[in-house]
Amino acid sequence: MFAPRNKAAVMAAYLAMLAAAGGAFWLVVRQGEGLVAPPPEGAPFAAGSAATHGADPLVHFLLALAVIIAVARALGALFARIGQPPVIGEVVAGILLGPSVLGHLAPGVAAFLLPAAITPHLGLVSQVGIVLFLFLVGVELDTSMLRDKSGPATAVAHASVVAPFALGSTFALYAYPRLSSSDVPFHVFALFLGVSLSVTAFPVLARILRDQRLDHTPLGVTALTCAAIDDVTAWCLLAFVVGIARADVGGAVRTVAGTAVFLVAMVLLAGPVVRRWVARYGPARPPGQAALATALVALLASALATEVIGIHALFGAFILGALVPHGSEVAAYLHRKLDDMVVVLLLPAFFALSGLRTEIGLLGGASDWLLVAFVVLLATAGKLGGTALAARLSGFGWRDATALGALLNTRGLMQLIVLNVGLELRAISPKLFAVLVVMALVTTLMTAPLLRALTSTASRVAPGARASRPT
Amino acid sequence: MFAPRNKAAVMAAYLAMLAAAGGAFWLVVRQGEGLVAPPPEGAPFAAGSAATHGADPLVHFLLALAVIIAVARALGALFARIGQPPVIGEVVAGILLGPSVLGHLAPGVAAFLLPAAITPHLGLVSQVGIVLFLFLVGVELDTSMLRDKSGPATAVAHASVVAPFALGSTFALYAYPRLSSSDVPFHVFALFLGVSLSVTAFPVLARILRDQRLDHTPLGVTALTCAAIDDVTAWCLLAFVVGIARADVGGAVRTVAGTAVFLVAMVLLAGPVVRRWVARYGPARPPGQAALATALVALLASALATEVIGIHALFGAFILGALVPHGSEVAAYLHRKLDDMVVVLLLPAFFALSGLRTEIGLLGGASDWLLVAFVVLLATAGKLGGTALAARLSGFGWRDATALGALLNTRGLMQLIVLNVGLELRAISPKLFAVLVVMALVTTLMTAPLLRALTSTASRVAPGARASRPT
Repeated sequence: MFAPRNKAAVMAAYLAMLAAAGGAFWLVVRQGEGLVAPPPEGAPFAAGSAATHGADPLVHFLLALAVIIAVARALGALFARIGQPPVIGEVVAGILLGPSVLGHLAPGVAAFLLPAAITPHLGLVSQVGIVLFLFLVGVELDTSMLRDKSGPATAVAHASVVAPFALGSTFALYAYPRLSSSDVPFHVFALFLGVSLSVTAFPVLARILRDQRLDHTPLGVTALTCAAIDDVTAWCLLAFVVGIARADVGGAVRTVAGTAVFLVAMVLLAGPVVRRWVARYGPARPPGQAALATALVALLASALATEVIGIHALFGAFILGALVPHGSEVAAYLHRKLDDMVVVLLLPAFFALSGLRTEIGLLGGASDWLLVAFVVLLATAGKLGGTALAARLSGFGWRDATALGALLNTRGLMQLIVLNVGLELRAISPKLFAVLVVMALVTTLMTAPLLRALTSTASRVAPGARASRPT
Repeated sequence: MFAPRNKAAVMAAYLAMLAAAGGAFWLVVRQGEGLVAPPPEGAPFAAGSAATHGADPLVHFLLALAVIIAVARALGALFARIGQPPVIGEVVAGILLGPSVLGHLAPGVAAFLLPAAITPHLGLVSQVGIVLFLFLVGVELDTSMLRDKSGPATAVAHASVVAPFALGSTFALYAYPRLSSSDVPFHVFALFLGVSLSVTAFPVLARILRDQRLDHTPLGVTALTCAAIDDVTAWCLLAFVVGIARADVGGAVRTVAGTAVFLVAMVLLAGPVVRRWVARYGPARPPGQAALATALVALLASALATEVIGIHALFGAFILGALVPHGSEVAAYLHRKLDDMVVVLLLPAFFALSGLRTEIGLLGGASDWLLVAFVVLLATAGKLGGTALAARLSGFGWRDATALGALLNTRGLMQLIVLNVGLELRAISPKLFAVLVVMALVTTLMTAPLLRALTSTASRVAPGARASRPT
């Protein structure tokens, strides 16, 4: 079928062809230069690279993403080295790139790296990132933990929400006349402060437990169960707050009714469909691009539904994720395909956006920093204290009860999500936002050292050696 | 460590706690309702869900992505069923959602599904998608194919670029007074038409060969080698065209010099660094999130460099990808992590954007469709004819030479990328864009049936049975 010819002849023909083509193109251009084209319509032809590039959002978007990822990874690695969860470094990276540090020290550099023109794009990308992230949190949520109500976990978990919520909403009596705005109703503000003190960062908690090899101890399993219940409770509360904050009187009823219908429809109708669909895949028939496309369309539709109802898109994503059976082939596939991209590319964009919104400069005098210290104390008293007390009453020893409280006091990323929702709704002022971001960082930073101090190495088990759950 | 207490006592304490918390919150709200907050600053508090949602870009972005993915997958599956590469279905999906079909039949629906306000976001996401996609094309490119110049592949490949390029630029003599604009210089227009007739879609070609089990035959291997050389040649030509199209006289020199410096720096400086970095990973030390972050930052920096130089971001991405050793652990990891997301989520967004820009309605009378037919003929004569002739002269039989020509005539996705670059530069008019999109679709549609007609099943080998390359 293939018979090589004389190589020299082929080469000669080839060179002749190139020469002929070059000559022909030269003739065409000489010929064509006399031609006149129709007059231009609309925007002018894009000549002059400088003019074009000044307005090119792609350049700034690529630059911003590169800087954000690089700084986030560098600081994440730094914090991991000093025994802290890397996520703190990534949040700090966002604050460093924002107006608090870079914008303060070198406004020109900050405006070049993260100009205001790309903020809407960054906002949309990070919102999609949070939607994907909460979908994955839902996928990894072991819902059987929630169903098993025989243990003390439910009581402890609810105490760990109720105590900080009560303290936070009481604090609203002090904060409302000072840190709110007269067009925000008091009940919305109080609910919001309550929720933002009662959040626990399930993913950060899981990582701290894994890092310290506590994830299969009774303490670790109880902490994870409590955090899962906490998460669901806090998200429900937040959805409720967002619903009534966004709506007028008629709208509030519509939002609550819509949410109820949505939840029932998801559990009763979508649940069986999801489980049947997931069961189609297995080791013999691994999920592929078609499965990913189906999952993404369902995820987008579910997120869209909750956003239209009036609660946030992330609830729809989280609930759909929770319907995917934990440990299934599809759950593993989705995690494998999405997790690294979300963690490496999209979450840092969210942290950067949070950082851009955080103005530490708003915390001016000693009185403001006293306020920060007070909020940290309040949050810790509510979460750590409430949890420890409830755990002690349920039969844990003081040391483990306190360790459990320290664990659930981790607010990390989840708190930032709640705060951004609150800021977008204008339920909290930029100054209160800054106070609560610092509180989230401090309570998350406290967790690992406190935990190391409270747990002896004897109470840890090697990875793989599963302890039975404390029921 | 954990001693269960009386269950009833725990439950009673728990209920008391809930009741106390509820009562406390009620008291707080009653107390707080008399408080007055400071006057609002800036935008009003976001009450009234209808008002908020009308302006919410997230809703429209989620909706648009869901619709785009669903329609693209559905049409892709449809085209796969009739023996065509799915990518054609995805491109057609984009055209269906654009002004040509949906915008024409139901303008209200089109404006709701893909409103003009989200086009900038969609544009940015699809540009990032194309950058990632061309990075992956580079990663999968076996550069050893390009180095092996002993075979006839180089001569055939260059003929398959030169012939359509010559025909396309000659055609510019006819098209410039009719389909261009007087502020586009003739030489830019002629170069652009030449390039857009000489593109080959390497990824589509690879998929067609795999589908028809031809990828390990001498024909398939020659086709892939030619397409790889074609791609590199066409991208270099396009970079050159973009460089001189964007620049004034001084700018053109700067762009050409910048491109040369960039290429030398990438091959001589970045190449060894990339190879050393890739060699750090292996089966014993698989790449993870840190490797993904490093790769993404390098990719963004490289794309940024070419965009700033004045050629398109996608060249930087492609060249960096080509530096990653084909078949390495890192190449496999990057493909695994990025490919599905890019193919399922980001490329459909690009197709939709191309569809939004394609106005088939601009092709009005019979004379316009005659023009389309003529351009298809010209493109096929140049690519299929030129390739077949060169392959015959190099020693292939007529049947295989024609099959090779038919394969390289596949323009698919790559042609759309070139056309979008041309439209953004305003080097081609919307009408010529529509003509060339139809040409790209028709030449891609022709490939699979032509190939089936030309190759007997005898010349195919079972997957896994590798034929030696025709050298």
